[in-house]
Amino acid sequence: MSRYTSMEHLRFLLFEVHGIQDLFTYEYFAHLDPEQVTLMIDSAKALADRDMYPFFKEMDEQPVHYAGEGKVWSHPQLRTIIQNAAEQNWINGQYPFDLGGLQLPQMVYNAAHHIFQAANNGAQGYISLTTGAARLIHDYGTSELIETFLPPMFDGRWQGTMALTEPQAGSALTDITTVATPTESGYYHIKGQKIFISAGEHMACENFVHLTLARIAGAPPGLKGVSLFVIPKHRPTAGGGLEYNDVFCAGDYQKLGQRAYATTHLVFGEHDNCRGWLVGEPHKGLSYMFQLMNEARIGVGQTAASVAMAAYQASLQYARERSQGRKPGEKDPLKPPVPIIQHADVQRMLFTQKAIVEGSLSLAMECNRLADLMHVTEGEEQRPHWLLLEILTPIVKTYSSEQGNRSASLAIQVLGGYGYTVDFPVQQYYRDLRIMAIYEGTTGIQSLDLLGRKMTMENGAALTALAQHIDITIRTAAAHPVLQAQAAILQAEMERLGKTLRQLGKFAQSGNPERYLADATVFMEMAGYVVIAWQWLKMAVAAQIALDAADFSTQSKSFYEGKIHTMQFFFRYELPHAAACAEVLLAPGELTMLEEDERLD
Amino acid sequence: MSRYTSMEHLRFLLFEVHGIQDLFTYEYFAHLDPEQVTLMIDSAKALADRDMYPFFKEMDEQPVHYAGEGKVWSHPQLRTIIQNAAEQNWINGQYPFDLGGLQLPQMVYNAAHHIFQAANNGAQGYISLTTGAARLIHDYGTSELIETFLPPMFDGRWQGTMALTEPQAGSALTDITTVATPTESGYYHIKGQKIFISAGEHMACENFVHLTLARIAGAPPGLKGVSLFVIPKHRPTAGGGLEYNDVFCAGDYQKLGQRAYATTHLVFGEHDNCRGWLVGEPHKGLSYMFQLMNEARIGVGQTAASVAMAAYQASLQYARERSQGRKPGEKDPLKPPVPIIQHADVQRMLFTQKAIVEGSLSLAMECNRLADLMHVTEGEEQRPHWLLLEILTPIVKTYSSEQGNRSASLAIQVLGGYGYTVDFPVQQYYRDLRIMAIYEGTTGIQSLDLLGRKMTMENGAALTALAQHIDITIRTAAAHPVLQAQAAILQAEMERLGKTLRQLGKFAQSGNPERYLADATVFMEMAGYVVIAWQWLKMAVAAQIALDAADFSTQSKSFYEGKIHTMQFFFRYELPHAAACAEVLLAPGELTMLEEDERLD
Repeated sequence: MSRYTSMEHLRFLLFEVHGIQDLFTYEYFAHLDPEQVTLMIDSAKALADRDMYPFFKEMDEQPVHYAGEGKVWSHPQLRTIIQNAAEQNWINGQYPFDLGGLQLPQMVYNAAHHIFQAANNGAQGYISLTTGAARLIHDYGTSELIETFLPPMFDGRWQGTMALTEPQAGSALTDITTVATPTESGYYHIKGQKIFISAGEHMACENFVHLTLARIAGAPPGLKGVSLFVIPKHRPTAGGGLEYNDVFCAGDYQKLGQRAYATTHLVFGEHDNCRGWLVGEPHKGLSYMFQLMNEARIGVGQTAASVAMAAYQASLQYARERSQGRKPGEKDPLKPPVPIIQHADVQRMLFTQKAIVEGSLSLAMECNRLADLMHVTEGEEQRPHWLLLEILTPIVKTYSSEQGNRSASLAIQVLGGYGYTVDFPVQQYYRDLRIMAIYEGTTGIQSLDLLGRKMTMENGAALTALAQHIDITIRTAAAHPVLQAQAAILQAEMERLGKTLRQLGKFAQSGNPERYLADATVFMEMAGYVVIAWQWLKMAVAAQIALDAADFSTQSKSFYEGKIHTMQFFFRYELPHAAACAEVLLAPGELTMLEEDERLD
Repeated sequence: MSRYTSMEHLRFLLFEVHGIQDLFTYEYFAHLDPEQVTLMIDSAKALADRDMYPFFKEMDEQPVHYAGEGKVWSHPQLRTIIQNAAEQNWINGQYPFDLGGLQLPQMVYNAAHHIFQAANNGAQGYISLTTGAARLIHDYGTSELIETFLPPMFDGRWQGTMALTEPQAGSALTDITTVATPTESGYYHIKGQKIFISAGEHMACENFVHLTLARIAGAPPGLKGVSLFVIPKHRPTAGGGLEYNDVFCAGDYQKLGQRAYATTHLVFGEHDNCRGWLVGEPHKGLSYMFQLMNEARIGVGQTAASVAMAAYQASLQYARERSQGRKPGEKDPLKPPVPIIQHADVQRMLFTQKAIVEGSLSLAMECNRLADLMHVTEGEEQRPHWLLLEILTPIVKTYSSEQGNRSASLAIQVLGGYGYTVDFPVQQYYRDLRIMAIYEGTTGIQSLDLLGRKMTMENGAALTALAQHIDITIRTAAAHPVLQAQAAILQAEMERLGKTLRQLGKFAQSGNPERYLADATVFMEMAGYVVIAWQWLKMAVAAQIALDAADFSTQSKSFYEGKIHTMQFFFRYELPHAAACAEVLLAPGELTMLEEDERLD
């Protein structure tokens, strides 16, 4: 089987860079040890090798599609995948023992899901979506809702979904119009339509549980009037059976990629017989959903990194096996061609991918770690983790998806003409990855969130938290002679980021929020370079510690040298573009705030 | 019908920026005038509107595919497209009157083909490939070959192809092994295999004329032993008929994009009955082929620009029609949503596309103009055109295809989730475009050509020619107050490019060609930014002249203001990344010249 991820890198992140062991000191995770974690992710790998990766191509070539009369055809293997993943607790692994879970950290859950994402990203989506939907019911639902919905969701028999987007609203959740009318029986009558609902209908599950944003009849306009409901396709009856709940799948979307992953159009209450149950308090739906959205954004970022990882591995293998051409200076045409990995340009393309992929994955693991720390702390102890996670979430989502696209494109380029054919998987990775910059808030939305909300929240406390963490890494790195140069560069780049933000801030302070936010996406790009440079320096510190100790019991010497090398590569080839972003941001004038748009003709 | 290109921009390039009128002073083109040219490209637009664009999606969804027994199925519309294009002289338009041509400049031919590329890039390939193959026969073949092959090719009945790539050789033409054994009857026996042959077999033509690189039995190894042959699928008989020439299509490649365009695997002489005719002199095949390759590289660059243009137009239309969200600072949720084109981030994405697309197309037109000047000049008069065209060819190919990918990706992003669905064309443009950085020499190959050959050729004379042309534009621009700032910036960027090249040159001079060339692709990226900045300044000068004259007889005032605006946008948002490239290039150390590759694990 082809290699689609690096288990070595995954273990390096878990144990050497992000110190999962520290979590085991908290009671909730105290039952775990590194050997168990290793066994679990090895089991996940075996599952992915057996059930997921071999069907990656086939599930693309036989895509899910609307089959009429509310039905969506899905590949038969999907049921096997969901059921076996559920059985290995990869739906409910993070939940407490008393709910049948394993009290796993998100770091472990997402280490396993990284493997699934790299093996078969379309199939993985179904599983993690159920996990996320279940969490909303768990955290905010009544015990009745929990008892009704969680067991079949954890078994993989019922599919969870998030139903937010409506045809007329798109990214603007303010404009949601799905209506929930209260009854005296404890449920609401639901009426409305949702589009782009992932996993909203397919053949691998018996029932569908839609965590749905709707407006209670008479609620105030805007975001504040939005509530959260659980709306099953089939509702449980008093007798323990199920009856149809008037949730109809009216169609699906055929897509550029992720063709294994159903994208559906749902109609609630066409026959005025759709019931929904309020989750939590009225009018607070959006704040609950944002908890799931934040988790989903990390998940999307990590998926992008994982798909790009698989593309990287495919192109690395090809570059080692394919001989072509000779090195510059070699004029003898009778000399045999060299493997293309010996060409400098191919090494550049491979190191670029490695730098993007492993850097993104490290940032995702940092976020997973922070989510775990939030789970086991509260109050003032929780606050620094929360602040850091708040500011990193839009960045991991955006850097990984935007640069992941570029990385997968380089994977195609390494293969040349073959990479463009369906005989190799890289073109599928390229197609699958392209949605990640759109899912769960586009890059533009993430960038507004970063610059408009996260940079300014709590009087800049999130940015301060980030700066403090980066500073710790810089000081640790500066103690290693081989890392001093890059430690100094990162320090300078952090100062540039702060200075740029202060300059931009003048627009916000002078009452011009539109100008402040106009180039938010460029600011996001800049922040992405800096934050990934931090992750690389952090990885380099871990690698240098192992090299200094000459401890090669778990990883080889060249593995650690590869981390130092790739860190140097990132600082040299990628990071200089942060300064270019700053130049863009600080330039005077306004070119993208036209009232009239004829100049675009 | 949706708009897929800007005829206004095309006319602006032809008449106002690149002065096609100047060509009419040469005898070969003296029969032309601007009105005729306008009529011709309007006819091409009508043909594309009727025959090509309406089938763009359908030909993707019903792709060409191998049907067994040497046959390749193609969409029935393809025959109509090729025949009607042939009838409008869009295969042979550039050829002399006595061959049935119209003695058109390449500027006109490629203005029409830009429209075809934007309308239906897969279909367009068949047409221009026949034009190019015919040129080799015309320029180097005997009169017998010309009389035999050109008429049916010009009629669109016989398809021309270029057959270079072999399974074991890929980009390394040195390693070609197809053998041509001389006979006493004037032809050669051919034996060998070629892969990735575009248009090598389909249902729209009666015969196929493969311009093929092969090695005459006993020829010296390496590039010098390669000769050019014309090898038809069916060879003409003495009686005026055709007989099978043992050219067998053994299969095809299914691809990420350009699914309307057949990519075939050909076997020559499986039954020892394949005849080929030498074109030109023995062992000079590669130099002939490079003439066609250079033309094809401009064509690929232009195609990339054209496809990105179509994607831009689709996203521009969507952004005007789709309402969603409100502007920053607007807190009232009862206010109606605004068209998304009013969001600064959407304007940024649109101007980025416009800057890339129109800049690329302008550079392609510059190259077309130079090819025309070369056609009507010789000796010392020809030399400056030749030098400039040599240095610009790899740049137009690479900038347009690499940045075109980014541009088409932004088109998807403007549409958000809808852009990822097959209901909109932007995902097809994204897929189709991705091959352009691979066709006719990958970006890596182009970059080696630029840095290793073009920058140093004739003692740097090509670079000097480029610098002189850019300097003329700078000085012209500096005379307009509104363009002075950018004129100064371009001057500084040219100095930076020269300085960077001199620094790199030290590696070449000290006998380290591998290091000199290691980051050739980064140098290419830098050169691309600078050259496109030049094109934008050139366009801005033309626009400013019209604005100063207040002459809005052919284009509107806002059209010209849009050129100035987009020029400013390119200088502000894109050009700063040239400095980042320079920083990468000048950094010390070597990170991509590893002998062993374990660090990539």
